Amino acid sequence: MNFRIINYILGWVLIIEAAFLLMPFFVGLYCGESSATAFLIGAAISAAVGTLFVIKKPKDTVFFIKEGFVAVALSWIALSTFGALPFVISGEIPKFIDALFETVSGFTTTGSSILSDVEALSHASLFWRSFTHWIGGMGVLVFLLAVLPMAGGSQMHLMRAESPGPSVSKLVPKTQYTAIILYGIYILLTIIQFILLIIGGMPIFDAITITFGTAGTGGFGIKNDSIASYSPYCQWIIAAFMVIFGVNFNVYFLMLLKRFKQAISGEEFRTYLGLVAGSTALIAYNIYKNCNMVEGTLRHAFFQVASIMTTTGFASTDYEIWPSFSHVILVLLMFIGASAGSTGGGIKVSRIILLAKRARQEIRHYFHPKRVTKIHLDGKVVESEVIKTTSAYLITYVLLFAASVLLISLNTADTTTAFTAVAATINNIGPGLAQVGPTDNFGFFNAFSKSVLIFDMLVGRLELFPMLILFNPNVWFSKRIKKNI
Amino acid sequence: MNFRIINYILGWVLIIEAAFLLMPFFVGLYCGESSATAFLIGAAISAAVGTLFVIKKPKDTVFFIKEGFVAVALSWIALSTFGALPFVISGEIPKFIDALFETVSGFTTTGSSILSDVEALSHASLFWRSFTHWIGGMGVLVFLLAVLPMAGGSQMHLMRAESPGPSVSKLVPKTQYTAIILYGIYILLTIIQFILLIIGGMPIFDAITITFGTAGTGGFGIKNDSIASYSPYCQWIIAAFMVIFGVNFNVYFLMLLKRFKQAISGEEFRTYLGLVAGSTALIAYNIYKNCNMVEGTLRHAFFQVASIMTTTGFASTDYEIWPSFSHVILVLLMFIGASAGSTGGGIKVSRIILLAKRARQEIRHYFHPKRVTKIHLDGKVVESEVIKTTSAYLITYVLLFAASVLLISLNTADTTTAFTAVAATINNIGPGLAQVGPTDNFGFFNAFSKSVLIFDMLVGRLELFPMLILFNPNVWFSKRIKKNI
Repeated sequence: MNFRIINYILGWVLIIEAAFLLMPFFVGLYCGESSATAFLIGAAISAAVGTLFVIKKPKDTVFFIKEGFVAVALSWIALSTFGALPFVISGEIPKFIDALFETVSGFTTTGSSILSDVEALSHASLFWRSFTHWIGGMGVLVFLLAVLPMAGGSQMHLMRAESPGPSVSKLVPKTQYTAIILYGIYILLTIIQFILLIIGGMPIFDAITITFGTAGTGGFGIKNDSIASYSPYCQWIIAAFMVIFGVNFNVYFLMLLKRFKQAISGEEFRTYLGLVAGSTALIAYNIYKNCNMVEGTLRHAFFQVASIMTTTGFASTDYEIWPSFSHVILVLLMFIGASAGSTGGGIKVSRIILLAKRARQEIRHYFHPKRVTKIHLDGKVVESEVIKTTSAYLITYVLLFAASVLLISLNTADTTTAFTAVAATINNIGPGLAQVGPTDNFGFFNAFSKSVLIFDMLVGRLELFPMLILFNPNVWFSKRIKKNI
Repeated sequence: MNFRIINYILGWVLIIEAAFLLMPFFVGLYCGESSATAFLIGAAISAAVGTLFVIKKPKDTVFFIKEGFVAVALSWIALSTFGALPFVISGEIPKFIDALFETVSGFTTTGSSILSDVEALSHASLFWRSFTHWIGGMGVLVFLLAVLPMAGGSQMHLMRAESPGPSVSKLVPKTQYTAIILYGIYILLTIIQFILLIIGGMPIFDAITITFGTAGTGGFGIKNDSIASYSPYCQWIIAAFMVIFGVNFNVYFLMLLKRFKQAISGEEFRTYLGLVAGSTALIAYNIYKNCNMVEGTLRHAFFQVASIMTTTGFASTDYEIWPSFSHVILVLLMFIGASAGSTGGGIKVSRIILLAKRARQEIRHYFHPKRVTKIHLDGKVVESEVIKTTSAYLITYVLLFAASVLLISLNTADTTTAFTAVAATINNIGPGLAQVGPTDNFGFFNAFSKSVLIFDMLVGRLELFPMLILFNPNVWFSKRIKKNI
């Protein structure tokens, strides 16, 4: 294990975080809030530690997939730990475990909160909470790759570990340009949503923070009732942009190249939109009795479907009172998640497509046991290695999910809370049902349960293996061997 | 598709069922119940239809795995349909869908009931309910293979389709002898349990029916409170035998051959017993506060763990009032299920072991991407084909589960009911939680929901693919082509 290069990457991540932390500092300064200082101190600590790590540039810059995974996992842990400091320093979230929960929830774009009254936070803190969503959505290492030209041709391993989906395609041959293009599209869409919300009469601060929360498919709001008090126009815009940010960014890249036909013909893209439309129709039909207004019914159904499927977690209404059928649709969408290569979480639509095709292949296999059949996606043969890894992903996901629910149930009164608390965090959604429903929060859990959920959020955002690899003794033992030599 | 041989097998299955139906007829006759006639009529119909199917012996007796799957699936459907007739004829369960639900629940050893008052049934009906568990536990086609020497060497396909677990091993080279040995062990264990219950002072009728329910890991009781009113001694015996019938029968075969060391060294056997012991300890610790008696706590914990893990579904107490942690353990055990090659249902311990090893293999793969690693079970390499099929099993299972919950939720007030109703039927357990808890029943569902759950029970008992294959058009189209030629 090449720990020199990992330390070097960690150092740069912390320096970038220091730069990011200056943003809420300026917001606090502008609003004349005392909490601004906390963000300045946080930035200073982050910059100082980061500099220590990057002073010595490693000679050996080659690294393999395992180093990529470990670097990404440790980066996210460091990012969250240092990002939590200002909350503690300012005293707005006094306990470190709570501040860590909130920050991990931010960076992983989960949006679960331990706060019962977000409106009591300062503007600086609210800005930072939402900004972590935006940073975490596209990924901090993708940002690093965009701004820091690194030697060696293996940066792709970093991107692969941080980007969601069963397979990552380079848009262009050079990794740095791919990263720049991705962030370019991301920034452009963010700006468009911001402008559309301003047009709808939303205050600037609300528009910025909510756009960050939408873009990262995070879900932190700045009001206690999430999005419920904004105008129907704003709710439609937010819902539409949640869907937009849940699309594979390759689709937008193809559109930029004016290859529209190719852009909209992808199986994942069509399935994703089909699922959004179908679920919205089913839920609207199911809740029409409760709501009795066509526009409101459609809006709330569409909003909640978009919010849960893209794993954002905003709420336009209290969907806990909806009937069981709507709940089950939402729970299934929680697991399906958004598209690969988007900012959304969950298992991802493309994985579900591959898994469904694998199931069909198995049934067909009984008719022609000797025929070798291939699985196709978008007309191309999917490598058997990708199928194997996707199957392993589902297996690991199910095992991890079961273990987490068991641990959390030690600390809950009912099974629905335990089940949906894990579902909401491992899929990076935010709110669940029952005690962790859209009108409640995660504050009542004890420190042990919070630690489990923090782990689940990270594991969900980094798609299981980068985090799990940290538990493999080979990561740490190989270091020791190297030292001894 | 060789439909001649499938019809021939179906015919024999119905003739055997006619013989089985004479048993409750005699019970009814002995008790002087009018319902006895219904079973005689049922037997006559079954025998008549069966004879029509076997009159013409097919010339071509060769069949492949697809014919094996289709034959088993159709046999189970026929078995359940004709087995439900006496309930309707006697008027004890007037609606056919209810009678079918009850019979499928019996044969698939599920034990879910639509009856709110089982004590109102005649002895003949109670006997038949429990007897279906015993028949379904080891499998009617295994019985057919034991009594009917069939030409051709491909009977193994029938056994493979009906027996639970990722791979079926022939105990001895000849399929017929394997089937005889399995039924021999099954009958022997059944007799031992019966005698032990009689020693405990249980009435003969109760001892017979409850032993049938235990042996098949079914769970139909003859009292409204299941097993709660029997003595602690009887509860211990029943719990122990549930665990015994949840062991892979290969273990007993090895013991008969006096290869004890090999018998008890199997990974699945040890994991299975470890899970029973571990879960019992955790639940006992968790419920001790509620119960406050060491013996009672241990007994109820052990009983419920044995009952749920082996997917029997007997209840010694109302475990719905237990804390969330115990519920989650029970729900996880629902999915894990018993051992392969036992009478129990669920995903099966050996599949869980294989899946866990596959997950670990994936993580290791990132350290040595080019090294080809093998998965071992009991020291032997597991063929990659078995791993692939096991992964496909999990995938199909998850997709089917999700679809069923969605359909059932149309007909339930809460998500827990929808979720656990499907879990309890697809895993062949019996009771779930909330509205389908141990003190409730499935009677309130509408006909559509009952049909979905009937399908889930069959799909669970036959381990997905034999039932799913019926939906493949190749099964039916190839027949038409043959006719045209």
